[in-house]
Amino acid sequence: MGEHYVITVGRQYGSGGREIGRRLAERLGIAYYDKELITQAAKASGMSEKLFENLDERATNSLLYSLVMGTYSGVANRITNLSDLSLNDKLYQFQNKVIREGAEKGSCLFVGRCADYVLREHPRLRSVFIHADMESRKQRVVEEYGQARQGVEQMLMQADKKRANYYDYYTDRRWGDARNYDLCVSSSRLGIDRTVELLELWVRMSLNLE
Amino acid sequence: MGEHYVITVGRQYGSGGREIGRRLAERLGIAYYDKELITQAAKASGMSEKLFENLDERATNSLLYSLVMGTYSGVANRITNLSDLSLNDKLYQFQNKVIREGAEKGSCLFVGRCADYVLREHPRLRSVFIHADMESRKQRVVEEYGQARQGVEQMLMQADKKRANYYDYYTDRRWGDARNYDLCVSSSRLGIDRTVELLELWVRMSLNLE
Repeated sequence: MGEHYVITVGRQYGSGGREIGRRLAERLGIAYYDKELITQAAKASGMSEKLFENLDERATNSLLYSLVMGTYSGVANRITNLSDLSLNDKLYQFQNKVIREGAEKGSCLFVGRCADYVLREHPRLRSVFIHADMESRKQRVVEEYGQARQGVEQMLMQADKKRANYYDYYTDRRWGDARNYDLCVSSSRLGIDRTVELLELWVRMSLNLE
Repeated sequence: MGEHYVITVGRQYGSGGREIGRRLAERLGIAYYDKELITQAAKASGMSEKLFENLDERATNSLLYSLVMGTYSGVANRITNLSDLSLNDKLYQFQNKVIREGAEKGSCLFVGRCADYVLREHPRLRSVFIHADMESRKQRVVEEYGQARQGVEQMLMQADKKRANYYDYYTDRRWGDARNYDLCVSSSRLGIDRTVELLELWVRMSLNLE
């Protein structure tokens, strides 16, 4: 891997973490991976991209979720669910492969997909988690993502649960626990622009870049 | 409270969080509170400082701990333990009072003691959590604090449990969860000096200080 480095960004939905990641990658002049992961994983598997898109991080809605939550009791749905399980795990494996291959090609930044965990042995990994207070997140998803204002808080809490569930299932860590990440920052304290600035500075400091 | 601001620092034992906090307060030119809290709380209570020192953050070793852990079953020790409980809670209340009074007097920095939770409504609060990887922590407690090398990892894990237990008992939050803090940083990535630098920069950015 030489002098290559990798940044991973975990984020709460509505925190602006994805935009922050994209702009940070731009400023550092490194590759950026997000939805592309799904595309590449789908291509590698030879299955349709659309199928994977529907699963993606919602994997744990199905059997995995039921198992973790202790609510699995269906018999009628068992066959459908079991095929979901294997597809989800397959998708996860393809994503891992894409993440590892991306990290080998050169310096890059990954948003989501447990990339911090997949690349935990990388000698030049810097992992980031972005969160924000509920008010900022509500504002962002309504104004930027066009989400309906009605029920937005509940939607955000569900989104948190889904991401936590996905991450905790596929890793031996806890999503959002500071000790998993090198730097965690609230984007509501600084706003998007200055959060990107702070992160760029920190990445350069901690990796001794120019 | 006017233009006063408050920094709180939570930290893993051996992360250098306390030293980082002290030096950050120095650089910002604001008051620093740590063990002094205990002294002041003890004075306010009229009880001996020594007594409080023994309890302090180990509060939850006794009845609280047993209750939380579901291992409380003693009858013989009940009276002793109940008096511990009331003393611990009293200590916590006195510490809260000292923290609130400190924050009213002027800009300041608190290390530990759930100060981030006590001051959660403060309009100019910035809360920080410092952690570090196990290797750095081991090195620090052996070389800087003179801890025996033997059993040091277990000691550190116990220290984590105690702090988590104390924090989680007295707040409705989870110790070390990134979402409770405005900034969380691993001191092993930057070392002590540059972590202080980063934090100073972040505090000035996020509070629009000069």
